[in-house]
Parts: sequence; structure tokens; C-alpha cells
Amino acid sequence: MTVDDSILSRLADTLETRLPSGGGQPLAGSYVSKLYQRGPDAFLKKIGEEATEVVLAAKDGDSERIVAETADLWFHSLVALAYYGIRPEQILNELARREGVSGLAEKAARPQS
Amino acid sequence: MTVDDSILSRLADTLETRLPSGGGQPLAGSYVSKLYQRGPDAFLKKIGEEATEVVLAAKDGDSERIVAETADLWFHSLVALAYYGIRPEQILNELARREGVSGLAEKAARPQS
Amino acid sequence: MTVDDSILSRLADTLETRLPSGGGQPLAGSYVSKLYQRGPDAFLKKIGEEATEVVLAAKDGDSERIVAETADLWFHSLVALAYYGIRPEQILNELARREGVSGLAEKAARPQS
Amino acid sequence: MTVDDSILSRLADTLETRLPSGGGQPLAGSYVSKLYQRGPDAFLKKIGEEATEVVLAAKDGDSERIVAETADLWFHSLVALAYYGIRPEQILNELARREGVSGLAEKAARPQS
Repeated sequence: MTVDDSILSRLADTLETRLPSGGGQPLAGSYVSKLYQRGPDAFLKKIGEEATEVVLAAKDGDSERIVAETADLWFHSLVALAYYGIRPEQILNELARREGVSGLAEKAARPQS
Repeated sequence: MTVDDSILSRLADTLETRLPSGGGQPLAGSYVSKLYQRGPDAFLKKIGEEATEVVLAAKDGDSERIVAETADLWFHSLVALAYYGIRPEQILNELARREGVSGLAEKAARPQS
Repeated sequence: MTVDDSILSRLADTLETRLPSGGGQPLAGSYVSKLYQRGPDAFLKKIGEEATEVVLAAKDGDSERIVAETADLWFHSLVALAYYGIRPEQILNELARREGVSGLAEKAARPQS
Repeated sequence: MTVDDSILSRLADTLETRLPSGGGQPLAGSYVSKLYQRGPDAFLKKIGEEATEVVLAAKDGDSERIVAETADLWFHSLVALAYYGIRPEQILNELARREGVSGLAEKAARPQS
């Protein structure tokens, strides 16, 4: 599978331009511009909603919906992060830091003898 | 900021070795092995819980907690994805696909004249 | 304050008539009939959504919204209960049973000397 | 089924005595006293968590767990309401008010000819 790792960074770049403080004009008709204009509760509510939808799709074991709903959940996480001035790379670095602390990766690399 | 983009893939690799069906022995004392042994409700419940914690941290505007809780939310998403045989790259590809459809990236790349 | 305690039971009675299996015709234009026709995910998703809205209203300390959102949360709980053939009285009895077990009420009734 | 309608009011009375501002001493070992001492995020987080557990139990169609988890969800709602100085009767009155507005009860009482 071709991995497009930089998509999170690229999405964050775009989201930042949609912020009221982003310098540019909010894009007419943009879903994200509307979320930002309505204020944080609008996208925070979506995080709770999409988390529930991931759970529902998972309980049905429906892979296609799990992919779609997890994408929704992560997308609205990115919307929130941009609003609070946080880059997705900070989340990835935090995940990498924890991996180091737990030795999770190292142990996984070891032959399971 | 140095971006460690491949962390999601690397975490997924490790999580797969923790699955009961992963071939290896579940790691004694491993938080993830325990989650998998308790069944899907154990980690799905965490997705709802961590989503609420992201919302709480965001309402406080507490950047450090937003980073930590979003990392928790994404981590438990990865735990669920591995359980259902889904790779994080599929989520990233779905996000990239939507970006293409909405022309979000293209518009962002344009000079905002 | 006048307490209308029987509202939960009365709402449950009404919700039961909206169930596809309720004998009557689903009411045209009824929000609840539509939820039931769309299946359980439709109202279960609302429970996750309304729980998040209670949290958001609470973090703002906005009493009016806390009342409205808690009413929404309880209402969609009642919708789910009716679908699964559970009466709100069973929830109230469970709460009363726990109160008895914990001796919560008894202790509260004692003068706090 | 015997309905104990006043349980919500009675629980609210007890919860109010557990509030730091409740005049009485927080009850040693009381789960609720501990929640209040830890601050609102402690019980608001539980609302998100218990909502997810209701959803999980419902997807399994497990009536016993639906009852238990809905009781948990309503209980933690009551904990939050007491903290913000809101009585459960206000929620019941709001539900009754909406019922009146929608004519839900009236329509349900009519023979479905």
C-alpha cells in the first residue's frame, strides 16, 4: 500500500488558512470555514459524534464504515488542533515519545522466541 | 519541527503483534494485550472516553492536555483499527481522497490574492 | 417547584406507539417515527452526541443549556429504551436499588452532627 | 411494575449534601464526594464514558446491561446537575413542556384510526 504520510501535515496547512485568524478570507461554502465561524463547540461536538459513529461501525464489524468514520474522527481532531494552534506533528511526536518510553517498538522488533 | 510521519504505521505493526491472532504470545503486562484479551468493548469504550477528554481539554484551552488526549484518542483508534484488520494508511488515503474531491489542497496552494 | 414525576412513564407510553412494532401507524412527520425507521444507530448516535453537548454546556456553566441538553440526552435514552423493550421505571428501580445498597439515602437523612 | 418516581428527587437531595458547598462533611469513602473533590471534569468525563457504554450494550441487545449503563448515565447526569445547582425536576419539566408543544401525548392518547 502506498502511504501518503504527509497528508496530516498538508491538511493542517489548509485548515490553518480557513481560520478566522488565518489571514485569508474564509472560503465561501467551505464546511470548515463554517465550523470555525460557529465557534469551538461546533467542531468539538463533532468529535463526540464521530467517536460514537466509529464505535457503532466497529460493533457492526463494517470495515468500510470504520475507515470512513475514523477518517471523520481524525479530520475533526485536525480541525480542533488547528483552532488551538497545535500541529498534528505534535501528536505524532507524542505517540513516538510514548512508544520509546514503553519500549513497544523495540520489543516488537525482537524475534518472539 | 521534525516530523516522524511513519509512527502511525510503526505503531500499527506493533499493535498487530499484540493481537490474539498475531502469532506471538501476548506480552505479559502489556496494556494493549490486556485490552485485546478483554475484547472490543474494552477499547471501543476508550474511544468514547478519550473523545470526551479531548473536548474537556479543548474547553479549558489547555494545549498540553489537548496534545496528550488527542494522542490517547488516536492511539485507541489505532488499537481498534488493528483489531478489525485495517491499516492507518487506509485512513490517511481516505483523508487524501477527500482532500482531492474537495479541491481543498489545490485551493490552499493557490496564492490568496 | 411542582414535580411532574410521571413524565418519564408517559413519554415511554407514547414512544412505544411510535415503534414499527407498536401496532399503530408511524406518525407522519414525527421525529421519533423517523428515528425508529432509520434503525438503532440513528438514535444511539444521538446519545453520544447529546452527551457531548451536556459536557460542552456544563463547561460553559450555562444552566439553561445544561437543562436543555440533559433533557435531550434523557429523551434519546428513552427512545432507545423503548426500542429495546425496557421501561424507564426499570432504570429508576435500578437507581433505587443501588441507593439502598449504598445506604446513601439513609445516611443523608441522618442529622450531620 | 411499582414505579418509584421520586427516586430522582431523593438522589438529588443526597447528592447536594455531598457537594463541597453542601454544608456537611464530604462522606469518607463516598464515590460521589471523591468525584466532587476532583472537580467537574471527573464527572463530565463519566457522562461521555457511560453514554458510550449505553451504546455498546444496546448494540449487543443486552437488556440487563442497557438498564445498568443507562442507570449509570442518568446517575452521573444527576451528579453534574447537583454541581451546577440544577434539580432533576427541571429536566422533567422541560421534557413535559416539549411534550406539550409537540402534542405528543395528546396524539398518543387518540385512537389510531
